[in-house]
Amino acid sequence: MTELADIEKQDLLYQGKAKEMYTTNDPEILWVHYMDQVTALNGKRKVQMKDKGKTNCAISSQLFTDLRQQGIENHFIKQLGPTDQLVQRVQIIPLETVVRNYASGSFVKRYQVDYLQKFEQPVIEFFYKSDALDDPFLNDDDALALGIATNDQIAEIRKLARQVNQHLIQIFAKMNVQLVDFKLEFGLTKAGDVILADELSPDNCRLVDMKTKESLDKDIFRKGLGEMVPVYEEILQRLQHAEEI
Amino acid sequence: MTELADIEKQDLLYQGKAKEMYTTNDPEILWVHYMDQVTALNGKRKVQMKDKGKTNCAISSQLFTDLRQQGIENHFIKQLGPTDQLVQRVQIIPLETVVRNYASGSFVKRYQVDYLQKFEQPVIEFFYKSDALDDPFLNDDDALALGIATNDQIAEIRKLARQVNQHLIQIFAKMNVQLVDFKLEFGLTKAGDVILADELSPDNCRLVDMKTKESLDKDIFRKGLGEMVPVYEEILQRLQHAEEI
Repeated sequence: MTELADIEKQDLLYQGKAKEMYTTNDPEILWVHYMDQVTALNGKRKVQMKDKGKTNCAISSQLFTDLRQQGIENHFIKQLGPTDQLVQRVQIIPLETVVRNYASGSFVKRYQVDYLQKFEQPVIEFFYKSDALDDPFLNDDDALALGIATNDQIAEIRKLARQVNQHLIQIFAKMNVQLVDFKLEFGLTKAGDVILADELSPDNCRLVDMKTKESLDKDIFRKGLGEMVPVYEEILQRLQHAEEI
Repeated sequence: MTELADIEKQDLLYQGKAKEMYTTNDPEILWVHYMDQVTALNGKRKVQMKDKGKTNCAISSQLFTDLRQQGIENHFIKQLGPTDQLVQRVQIIPLETVVRNYASGSFVKRYQVDYLQKFEQPVIEFFYKSDALDDPFLNDDDALALGIATNDQIAEIRKLARQVNQHLIQIFAKMNVQLVDFKLEFGLTKAGDVILADELSPDNCRLVDMKTKESLDKDIFRKGLGEMVPVYEEILQRLQHAEEI
């Protein structure tokens, strides 16, 4: 393995909606660049926003670090400057794992329940990560039939998702933030282990202020509720403050 | 309990898309009338078809009888004349249980796989039986969160659905018919047991001829492939013939 200090960014491997992934001179390490871009409607709406990349990079780096301290293995290696990270190269399992503590978003739309209705137990839902198919909802049997993951991998994903949820609820509670729902992605290491990957930021978490119930996440953009980046910066500040307590 | 010979039809309890349910002089027994009606698009398209009711009533009565002989408890008590049945009154669990052996219908649409692609294991999917919501797809966690069924009931439904599938595959194979997929509904008895209810007919099974791969079910109506009732009658004849072997 190359020394981290000697890692060099090489070719663009993949351009996502909010991040670019580059290869490096170490085949096991990727270089992630957080872009100043925000999208909605599965990429159909796209806007540039100054400082969004560095805010999400900082939040995500902090949360991955916190989760590792809690024993939750993930792909984060280190932050490099304001908008970049080194991460372990994994094979992403094309299953978007959504954990819901309160009803919001597509759950409210599908089942017409009250926004922020509390669930007695967290609800886990899987979506097939496929832009061509518009990320359709699926269940465990569907994921098996489509060859997306094995039974054991699905069980491991569900176990890890519940653990991440427990830790994130606590981290956000210290910030007076209610964790409504969030999306995770997992990857397979070379050894075949399932570990947490992608990012953890207000781009893929629904967060509301515990007192005001105001949205503190990408719903600000989706619903046109005002300036989004200052709110993301507020989340970062509360996170840094909570870490210091 | 009233003697079956003394059962009298009373008030219309519920009018479905293809059946009417009436109360009887026994509070534990309902009277089902199979209508000459066929619908598609969740009732948005509706057509009258002579002899459809009696064909489905005969097929459903026969299949429920066969399943009972295989130890699968269900609501069917007896057939009364060509279009009517007596059934045990149950509280229907609002979960449409779809069992898929081959890809078709909404599975093909959602995931863009080949029609009739074989699944290594049967795929079970649940839909929330709600006309107002257009029967949305859901997973086990959603069903729990919405209070539709308990964990134990969901496990029992899944177990029974797999057993029904095994028996139906064999019954249809004797008829040179491939069981592509089908929809079941389950109900709770007064004692709290989960038993099979609703109907079993080409209205809620996808069937194709093993040799010609022609549809032998409601897809004929959905896709405008020709006269539907003669095909349903063909299924009934093959079923009666298979029973005689």
